[in-house]
Amino acid sequence: MTIPHPTDAFRATRIGILGAGQLGRMLALAGYPLGLEFLFLDPAEEPCAGPLGEVIRADYLDTAALDAFCARVDVATYEFENVPVAAAEYVAQRLPLRPGTAALATGQDRLSEKQRFESLGIPVPPHAAIDTRADLDAAISRLGLPAVLKTRRMGYDGKGQAVLRSAADVDLAWARLGGNDQASNLILEAFVPFDRELSCLTVRGVGGDLAFYPVIENVHRSGILHCARPQPADPLQTLAEDYCRRVVEHFDYVGVMAFEFFVVGERLLANEIAPRVHNSGHWSIEGAECSQFENHLRAIAGLPLGSTALRGHSLMLNCIGAEPEPATVLQNPGAHLHRYGKSPKPLRKIGHVTLTAASAAELTALQAHVEPLIGN
Amino acid sequence: MTIPHPTDAFRATRIGILGAGQLGRMLALAGYPLGLEFLFLDPAEEPCAGPLGEVIRADYLDTAALDAFCARVDVATYEFENVPVAAAEYVAQRLPLRPGTAALATGQDRLSEKQRFESLGIPVPPHAAIDTRADLDAAISRLGLPAVLKTRRMGYDGKGQAVLRSAADVDLAWARLGGNDQASNLILEAFVPFDRELSCLTVRGVGGDLAFYPVIENVHRSGILHCARPQPADPLQTLAEDYCRRVVEHFDYVGVMAFEFFVVGERLLANEIAPRVHNSGHWSIEGAECSQFENHLRAIAGLPLGSTALRGHSLMLNCIGAEPEPATVLQNPGAHLHRYGKSPKPLRKIGHVTLTAASAAELTALQAHVEPLIGN
Repeated sequence: MTIPHPTDAFRATRIGILGAGQLGRMLALAGYPLGLEFLFLDPAEEPCAGPLGEVIRADYLDTAALDAFCARVDVATYEFENVPVAAAEYVAQRLPLRPGTAALATGQDRLSEKQRFESLGIPVPPHAAIDTRADLDAAISRLGLPAVLKTRRMGYDGKGQAVLRSAADVDLAWARLGGNDQASNLILEAFVPFDRELSCLTVRGVGGDLAFYPVIENVHRSGILHCARPQPADPLQTLAEDYCRRVVEHFDYVGVMAFEFFVVGERLLANEIAPRVHNSGHWSIEGAECSQFENHLRAIAGLPLGSTALRGHSLMLNCIGAEPEPATVLQNPGAHLHRYGKSPKPLRKIGHVTLTAASAAELTALQAHVEPLIGN
Repeated sequence: MTIPHPTDAFRATRIGILGAGQLGRMLALAGYPLGLEFLFLDPAEEPCAGPLGEVIRADYLDTAALDAFCARVDVATYEFENVPVAAAEYVAQRLPLRPGTAALATGQDRLSEKQRFESLGIPVPPHAAIDTRADLDAAISRLGLPAVLKTRRMGYDGKGQAVLRSAADVDLAWARLGGNDQASNLILEAFVPFDRELSCLTVRGVGGDLAFYPVIENVHRSGILHCARPQPADPLQTLAEDYCRRVVEHFDYVGVMAFEFFVVGERLLANEIAPRVHNSGHWSIEGAECSQFENHLRAIAGLPLGSTALRGHSLMLNCIGAEPEPATVLQNPGAHLHRYGKSPKPLRKIGHVTLTAASAAELTALQAHVEPLIGN
């Protein structure tokens, strides 16, 4: 796949995206200026990337739909980490799928993900595979309480997990998570008494070129990301980049990858990877020289990577469950509103606000003023 | 027209745009994050805003098409200054058209535009209305040579004008511009020995609130804008804002207006206004806190205006007639490519490149490096 030669008539490079949620929407907004066009495949009735490109509305495993999708794009990617691996493999047999299927498959299973991190020399929290109630009791004896029982697959935003603090919690959590077909697909993770949560976004090009955004400090509320703030000159930047490099080189990864860590003292413990652009990087639209969305597209289209340098100081606040009044947010200089075109529902991410300022102190003051206006 | 209340289900405010060229394309890219959706009306076969919203393909004066357009939007605007005034009036009778028809009509006639400026106390270059060859000869006697003969209407990017330096030029120019039905619609303008060309972008909200971007120094080549660079702390900023304020308040203007000036010593002479977002403001996507595109949409949608403050140093270079190789441009940190999805044609604006840097000196150095890569 090549970008058209400058003397040719204009022909857009066509990007196919599996999934058409807000990440697809923001990818398309970043990609049109590069001369890219977008085709989505998504089973949802009114996916929020819909106004930004044609959507093939179909199940991810519908091979006729996948054939139509593949016939009309030059390169494919995914914006939803739970796209069935079989669908991704079907696409990858027909055209370049970036990133590939291995990172997707690994990221979908918390156990194999941790085993992969360990094989690459990246520390992980103590954990145990849980197939039976006996496994769970043995693991609790070994790891102690508190601990977190999670489904291995399909968990996100705190779904599919339970914090175990007492013996009573164990029975309730087992009844909820263990009493179904997923029973053989749980993992118990020791509760990590972390100081901070950090993520690191890496972008890798088709030629193996690499760039890293400054690490981001994340604050979650009820298991959902609330605030993400990039940390210029964080002492853990070098270590985070080292761990990211090991993973993306292992997978011969192309595109943006997010790696989430727990910080314990001066150590980083691997939590999980997301093989896609990530909520903790949304500030980069205004706050970095080249956003995570543009950089993912540059990478998968074979273009040079963009600068990951910060532009001033910025942070992102999610809008969860309800939208703030737009005018109330927009009247604050430095506040940038991003609505996803989604109807509000409890715990649903329906937008975000990026705050920008000239100094760290001004940014903190702006956050104190704007955060109550968002109200979640 | 109101923005949906935060507790409602999501419903986009629908913006109707007359014209679907690159300005419409960039308006839509700026507007989706605000929760806006877009419907265009344009007679072109494949207008370059097409991928960003539905296009009603029709002549601007097709009333059935205008009815369909009006029925489906909440507020309308135009991105092409030669939209027929009758079409704009038809729309304005049915829903809010912002800016209104008076600024559009005035901006379409170079003579009435200059008369309006004079009535508002804004200096203009010496000029004369030309209806006959005798008018032309008399005007040359009065204004002297060199001078510029222009059609009053439908001129842009240097089209419909001729520079007169000698008597021989006069005959040729009259044969070209005077020998048709437009003969009664010419204007002779004294050649202004200007030091610089400046533009000032103003945005005015529905409540009369005003914001001004820093004035922009423009360099034209063959009558087409080549480079636009905002000038922090220019000594003529206050005067330019004063003249802009007079015009937008006169028209009770809503949206972004561009005002182009000739600088002669410490004076500003009015050249022309454009009642829309403007090529000389494209750097604002990366170079201002809130871009001209977002600010135009905020204004016409009744939202608070955004900050017009600069973010670092930036300038814009147009891509005229041919596209640079994208990778060659993108490999320079600080270079931001904007392709319009248009096929190259001689003298056609098919994209632009914004350069950003931390200091004025770094920006000038980056320009020296990137400008030859664009090659026009």
